[in-house]
Amino acid sequence: MSSQAPHPTLLIPGPIEFDDAVLQSMSHYSESHVGAGFVKIFGETLSLLRQVVRSTDPNAQPFIINGSGTLGWDLVAANLVEAGEDVLVLSSGYFGDRFADCLTQYGAKVTKLDGPVGGVPSTAEIEKALSEKKFKLVTATHVDTSTGVLFNLKTLTQSVKKVSPDTLVIADGVCSVACEELAFDDWGLDGVITAGQKAIGAPAGLSISFFSGRAVEVAHNRKIPAAAYFANIKNWTPIMKNYEAGKPSYFSTPSPQLIHALNTAFKQLLTNGIDHRIAKHVEVSNYVKKSIADLGLKPVASKKEDQSHAMTAIYLPEGVGATDVLPKLLSKGVIFAAGLHATIGAKYIRFGHMGISAVNSNRGDIDKALNALKESLNECGYKA
Amino acid sequence: MSSQAPHPTLLIPGPIEFDDAVLQSMSHYSESHVGAGFVKIFGETLSLLRQVVRSTDPNAQPFIINGSGTLGWDLVAANLVEAGEDVLVLSSGYFGDRFADCLTQYGAKVTKLDGPVGGVPSTAEIEKALSEKKFKLVTATHVDTSTGVLFNLKTLTQSVKKVSPDTLVIADGVCSVACEELAFDDWGLDGVITAGQKAIGAPAGLSISFFSGRAVEVAHNRKIPAAAYFANIKNWTPIMKNYEAGKPSYFSTPSPQLIHALNTAFKQLLTNGIDHRIAKHVEVSNYVKKSIADLGLKPVASKKEDQSHAMTAIYLPEGVGATDVLPKLLSKGVIFAAGLHATIGAKYIRFGHMGISAVNSNRGDIDKALNALKESLNECGYKA
Repeated sequence: MSSQAPHPTLLIPGPIEFDDAVLQSMSHYSESHVGAGFVKIFGETLSLLRQVVRSTDPNAQPFIINGSGTLGWDLVAANLVEAGEDVLVLSSGYFGDRFADCLTQYGAKVTKLDGPVGGVPSTAEIEKALSEKKFKLVTATHVDTSTGVLFNLKTLTQSVKKVSPDTLVIADGVCSVACEELAFDDWGLDGVITAGQKAIGAPAGLSISFFSGRAVEVAHNRKIPAAAYFANIKNWTPIMKNYEAGKPSYFSTPSPQLIHALNTAFKQLLTNGIDHRIAKHVEVSNYVKKSIADLGLKPVASKKEDQSHAMTAIYLPEGVGATDVLPKLLSKGVIFAAGLHATIGAKYIRFGHMGISAVNSNRGDIDKALNALKESLNECGYKA
Repeated sequence: MSSQAPHPTLLIPGPIEFDDAVLQSMSHYSESHVGAGFVKIFGETLSLLRQVVRSTDPNAQPFIINGSGTLGWDLVAANLVEAGEDVLVLSSGYFGDRFADCLTQYGAKVTKLDGPVGGVPSTAEIEKALSEKKFKLVTATHVDTSTGVLFNLKTLTQSVKKVSPDTLVIADGVCSVACEELAFDDWGLDGVITAGQKAIGAPAGLSISFFSGRAVEVAHNRKIPAAAYFANIKNWTPIMKNYEAGKPSYFSTPSPQLIHALNTAFKQLLTNGIDHRIAKHVEVSNYVKKSIADLGLKPVASKKEDQSHAMTAIYLPEGVGATDVLPKLLSKGVIFAAGLHATIGAKYIRFGHMGISAVNSNRGDIDKALNALKESLNECGYKA
């Protein structure tokens, strides 16, 4: 039985429900951030991140920093691009657009390729853009949390290798790491940024990122030093290397409790191998998509190959608003998120099916949510 | 009895020991960052911060952001100064120097006034510097964690008002907020940056700051937009205002568990009024300083008026190194920190006496530490 107080099931696209052991790790007594016990846990956690993103490249570098997913954009924008350099941003919703905003804020010259609402920019468009200009880096949102659209990173890296091999490939993996197929080394990615509170299943408060050796070199060999201090990769690289080597190091105080929770979450998700975890998310996602279709509803991500396995953005029936449905869901003990997209905002809701809610079917979270959705829509006058 | 597992008493200058209720707040079940329950707690926590820094000015603005103390420097450097503008940094150790580094990294022209080792720059020196050049802002480390030196912010604000009233006054209060006298409105401060894990007694992972109305205006009315995204005050101001007004808002996912813990910590420290808490720290600090003197030892902060009440940096006896004493202290269940100062690093150790260890004398942390110190020094051949 759960040690947590009774509460509505949180099925938004992050933060997600916690496993008891993860949450209990947050209650670890106070430790020195440079004491032997914490150094061991932090170093181990950094090494586990390598497994989570499937990298064995010793030149690639994990970073785990107090912050949120947003800070990952700053790590990329402040360190890997210099003012005036060109960046290609592939957007499939709100978070792709925001990544572009962040890059622009730091002085990058951003070319943004938007997918249609609920879709992704095509490979032909991307290859055309890559061939027209020399881009320092290309970014893609692996799963855009606003639309539930999945971007094919494998195809993207193949395009970049073919058309513009010097261009760094950076993935926003906030809503994809630990639930979508991702092979850092095999695909030749240069960066994945993520956060703890989505499919990883840890509490919010950590910016988690992983950069290739050549990306780290770019950060260290800039012509003009990055005008950033906390988000400066140069300041963090030696710290992370030291911790992973079992040596204490100090740039800024890490959060022992969050690191303990992340350590527990990583160990849990690697127990049966990352393949198993991803397969489970695919299975649950397919079940959700089928159930949604059975209710006569459509996902925002229109094509099957563009559908995330982390979450489903669901168009509401004509005449039913998110502000009608969400309180009814809550009254049935289920929390979904409202829409978050400039053009279709009020017309859809978002159902996160990540982490323990997807992996541990004994909890019954998914069926509880689907039943609550059906009932709530009925109460709104829609006969599913 | 504590619900925490047995562990050595952590008496470094942060993170500090936790009260059980604070730590238990970290185990809060998962919530939506825009759900009604969390909005209420976050809004309330922001309002409580006003009380902690003694401000009733409605134009002043609290910010609580995922990050560490270091991020506070970025908030100041990225937002309140433009490239090429002059900043006066008053340093009494490692953290003053680092604040200067951060400002320089963002393009500020830094003039640094150093105190002597264990002391502060004099008022005469400061007024002279302020009169020679127009500084956009002046920064001071209220308590420098490397030396235990306390800076007199009240005198500083008087000097600035007299000599250069347009200059913003920013205090690094990481190691002072909730244990040293601090009157934001009365003294006319423009910014205090801090973190949860020191005298506030919350877990690490939050950057906590408070800016005057005119500082926030400076951030919003820059000539050139800040080249920062996560550390951009403009991005956070509407979010913080909304939460405090009880309205959900989104820029970047906050950490519900850390906010719950901070809320508990704030409520605890305000229970008997902030005056009471500060008086308790003064009392314990005086007791520690006297006990250290009785052992024949000297604090790094040489003058009484420059001695922090948060911690004591203690010179070791001739021939005894930190690497000798610290393991002996640990074997007696007490953790102190090593030195952290360029010129005297190995010659001293640091004893944090903040938060619950200072306020709750029933714990016996302070006497346990003093006894352990005496025994450890004896074992090192020093007869106290």
